[in-house]
Amino acid sequence: MAAFPFTIAATEGRARTGVLATPRGEIRTPAFMPVGTAGTVKALTVEQVAATGADIILGNTYHLMLRPTAERVARMGGLHRFMRWQKPILTDSGGFQVMSLSKISKVTEEAVTFQSHLDGSRHVLTPERSIEIQADLLGSDIVMQLDELTSLPATEARTAEAMRRSARWGARSKAAFGARDSQALFGIQQGGTTEHLRGESAERLREIGFDGYAIGGLAVGEGHEAMVEVLDYAPEMLPPERPRYLMGVGKPIDIVEAVWRGVDMFDCVLPTRSGRHGQAWTWDGPINLKNARFAEDDSPLDEASAVSASRDYSKAYLHHLVKSDEILGQVLLSWHNIAFFQALMAEMRAAIAEGRLETFRRSFRSRALASSDSAT
Amino acid sequence: MAAFPFTIAATEGRARTGVLATPRGEIRTPAFMPVGTAGTVKALTVEQVAATGADIILGNTYHLMLRPTAERVARMGGLHRFMRWQKPILTDSGGFQVMSLSKISKVTEEAVTFQSHLDGSRHVLTPERSIEIQADLLGSDIVMQLDELTSLPATEARTAEAMRRSARWGARSKAAFGARDSQALFGIQQGGTTEHLRGESAERLREIGFDGYAIGGLAVGEGHEAMVEVLDYAPEMLPPERPRYLMGVGKPIDIVEAVWRGVDMFDCVLPTRSGRHGQAWTWDGPINLKNARFAEDDSPLDEASAVSASRDYSKAYLHHLVKSDEILGQVLLSWHNIAFFQALMAEMRAAIAEGRLETFRRSFRSRALASSDSAT
Repeated sequence: MAAFPFTIAATEGRARTGVLATPRGEIRTPAFMPVGTAGTVKALTVEQVAATGADIILGNTYHLMLRPTAERVARMGGLHRFMRWQKPILTDSGGFQVMSLSKISKVTEEAVTFQSHLDGSRHVLTPERSIEIQADLLGSDIVMQLDELTSLPATEARTAEAMRRSARWGARSKAAFGARDSQALFGIQQGGTTEHLRGESAERLREIGFDGYAIGGLAVGEGHEAMVEVLDYAPEMLPPERPRYLMGVGKPIDIVEAVWRGVDMFDCVLPTRSGRHGQAWTWDGPINLKNARFAEDDSPLDEASAVSASRDYSKAYLHHLVKSDEILGQVLLSWHNIAFFQALMAEMRAAIAEGRLETFRRSFRSRALASSDSAT
Repeated sequence: MAAFPFTIAATEGRARTGVLATPRGEIRTPAFMPVGTAGTVKALTVEQVAATGADIILGNTYHLMLRPTAERVARMGGLHRFMRWQKPILTDSGGFQVMSLSKISKVTEEAVTFQSHLDGSRHVLTPERSIEIQADLLGSDIVMQLDELTSLPATEARTAEAMRRSARWGARSKAAFGARDSQALFGIQQGGTTEHLRGESAERLREIGFDGYAIGGLAVGEGHEAMVEVLDYAPEMLPPERPRYLMGVGKPIDIVEAVWRGVDMFDCVLPTRSGRHGQAWTWDGPINLKNARFAEDDSPLDEASAVSASRDYSKAYLHHLVKSDEILGQVLLSWHNIAFFQALMAEMRAAIAEGRLETFRRSFRSRALASSDSAT
């Protein structure tokens, strides 16, 4: 029996909207999780993040285990108390950052050994250690299994090998996690862009049994079209009664296409990272506030927004802050972008409930593709 | 007749507490003005600044005239509207930054010609142009006359020459400013650390007649003791019925000593600048959050504070943010420091009203001097 009740309130085609209920609060799906890498959603207070409507944020095991260390977070009362975020937190397993940020020393069936990108110190991560860090030390609400990722391009044999090792690590993760009432464990589907490997992965995960299922190994450079092709089959391979989480995605257009194909949860650094670089996401695509055309534009980014950053400041002022490298510019654009992503999810939840997601999706695609600044 | 009524409610020795009433709100004195250099109090939203209890902020003419330009600010509705701060703003004249940041090409009786530190472009500032920028384009509530500063060390002859030119520029500023109901003009006393020059400067300013009087040319490297020596006589040379403003000061200990000697207004970048560098000001002196002794310190910076930054976050978390170079660390420490400076001013206002400033001052001095981290 799954830890957290997941209620699907409405569907349209393969898309679903519902609620994942956790002891720390309800997560309305489809949900976007702002990324709080190192115990902070970059540049924002938790009050600012909460004002965007975010029900859950993501924390990074890799960053936190290196600094301030998971043991220190535990001694300070766990991640929620340490960073003052009382709603749910999902933590990743550390596997992705080990691959993308650190120098890997060795991957064996038992463990991955890597060097910290901060100081070169050597660390070992096993499926069991990742569970201990996430569930026991950080106190995460949704815990991810450790998986093995392949860098692209990869042969089918290499992709299959990593997928099967990930499944074995999923079983070890489940054994280490045990039975918990107030925390959930998600498995991760791998298999790259090869349909039968995605199918085999889903089958192996289903046999183990998780509280939710993530789609891993996408948004790693394969491109929008290749990702959408995988999403044409991969979500439906996963148990329909549990939440499906597309890891590390993405641009709004990616999220819309994935929701359309049955995905329930997302996370991405894009809104905060692009906000720190002067970019604002809008219903007409991304705009760069550095652009001189905003220098005397008195309009706000979104006058209908619930948050001050989007509603109260002129583009002219934001342009000035960005041009002047002022921290407040990074704060306001990060805040606006997360609010925009939350507004996008809210709009899709309402659209599914009202049976108009297909209309929304067509309109969103055409506006996004017409945008002059659409390159990120 | 002065533009803004200044009511002194209580005195203790030479110290005074009162209210300077402006159309945009009351300024409780002694007052500390956070510095909003380029149209932003660095790293903070105006709501965060207001939550500290700040009645007025300072804007920099030099920075704003170069970027986004005073004309653009005017077209966007003036500085208050542009940056969303509806309480009073004092602007400096640009003279200090021309000296400290730019490459001066030429100073004549007519004008100062300088090159922008941003792009090397050439600009001319006259007393009349400074008034136009501050009063007409930015829409400042309290406008400062342009003055000429000497770099230290300076001969008495050079100091006297700059002081007399400043007085002549004060007269030109007054003529350009004219009579205004909703804006005030402050003159600036110069004369370095030479008592009779300070006296001559005060006499010249008094003859011109201003709405308030600043003490300029201090906190420019002369040291705490030399500054306090000047403050033993300089404030009393200025009209007692008008506010006295000590420009660019300073550390809490400097402010306490200046209030004791009859100064009413202050500004300094110290709280925001030191906040961006991991330093927090406390009643026991400054502390550096990078210090390992805070790594697992669960206590907040000030549990009695009105602002979240001081009250709600553990020093352990702030230590983690500072060590990780997270923007939120800069935000929270800037916010805390401004709140601390405002709490210090509120405490001194109450102490003067209750006749216990001398007790407060002795206690504050001994705690500040006992602090192990007292070096900035």
